[in-house]
Amino acid sequence: MEWVVKVGGSLFGEYAVKLCESLVGRDVMVICGGGNLANLLRDYDREMEFSSTATHKSAILCMDILGILLADKIKGAEAFYSLKLAQKALNNGNLPILLPSQFLNQPDPLEHSWKVTSDSLSLYIAHHLKAKLLIATDVDGIYTREPSHDGAELIKSISAKKLLNFGETSVDEILGELLLQFKSDCYIVNGKHPERVISVIEGRNAECTLIGGI
Amino acid sequence: MEWVVKVGGSLFGEYAVKLCESLVGRDVMVICGGGNLANLLRDYDREMEFSSTATHKSAILCMDILGILLADKIKGAEAFYSLKLAQKALNNGNLPILLPSQFLNQPDPLEHSWKVTSDSLSLYIAHHLKAKLLIATDVDGIYTREPSHDGAELIKSISAKKLLNFGETSVDEILGELLLQFKSDCYIVNGKHPERVISVIEGRNAECTLIGGI
Repeated sequence: MEWVVKVGGSLFGEYAVKLCESLVGRDVMVICGGGNLANLLRDYDREMEFSSTATHKSAILCMDILGILLADKIKGAEAFYSLKLAQKALNNGNLPILLPSQFLNQPDPLEHSWKVTSDSLSLYIAHHLKAKLLIATDVDGIYTREPSHDGAELIKSISAKKLLNFGETSVDEILGELLLQFKSDCYIVNGKHPERVISVIEGRNAECTLIGGI
Repeated sequence: MEWVVKVGGSLFGEYAVKLCESLVGRDVMVICGGGNLANLLRDYDREMEFSSTATHKSAILCMDILGILLADKIKGAEAFYSLKLAQKALNNGNLPILLPSQFLNQPDPLEHSWKVTSDSLSLYIAHHLKAKLLIATDVDGIYTREPSHDGAELIKSISAKKLLNFGETSVDEILGELLLQFKSDCYIVNGKHPERVISVIEGRNAECTLIGGI
């Protein structure tokens, strides 16, 4: 497959549904973030201090849950635990949504911490599939400073190396390191505007940020 | 095993941990309710109206998540997807916490609706294991009327048949029907008082409600 589109948990609900509907029939597999379910886990974790492995596994199950629910609302989409079945669905013109827990359980490749979120996990899966990664989120991309602040400007393109020193952004802390390690790029696009996502997928210009790890 | 103890999601946090700590070394397997994670699913469902199968499967994954987190906090407890491994852990003196998604995926025996919650699912599993069921919750048992109302009295014992006409109680709507179908009993006990749970398990008297389906 050509693209993995990670649909941020912040889009979950109608935005995620509309975005995914526009992806049916394209060479795309979707992975969902954990959204408010994962945020609730963070609250539990602050209160109870679980091991990083327990929260890591639990957060991945939140991605499974939102994937199941999202697939349920979209005609032509189906949720799969298996990459093989996901590819088969794609070949048949359907939109596969990967429930990542089983794939990520076996090789279990990434650090267990809140620094690794569905962004980095999606990059790992995209890399495994030799697919490109697009992260759909609820802001237009990466900004020169917090988007809510005066003078914050959208960055069209940034190297993963530069991102490492960027502090908190709309993507997780490990993504930059992994992009460098995998020599990969990734696009950050506002998923509330499906036409931007489609533009990027079709190789056209769109408002977004390209993070370059090559 | 002799007992399945369902630990209500409302106990999740320190109450659930303390209760489970008191169960280590006893002939008990624990199953967790879905707690606030499942409540969040209900909110999503109200907003987006998923199919009953999607919410059913998702709610069971919430039980898995709280099971993983609970096991993480308890010395001598371990979480398992497999009943066989859970039994093995019990034989070794550990407290198994069942993550029910895989077991419930195969036979998939119960109606998919919010009427079936972790109460009925736990009864189904207990029945399969020929074990007794104790439901630990955050109230003392079943009351003559809403516990918060004046004059509400705890019921020591009630037939499952009578429970069917009882309206909303601290257990789910299908439990009574299943108890009749399986010719089983079940105890509703306040899990904030582990000593009551231990008393019931040891065959002694305790403040609780026995629901009789025999």
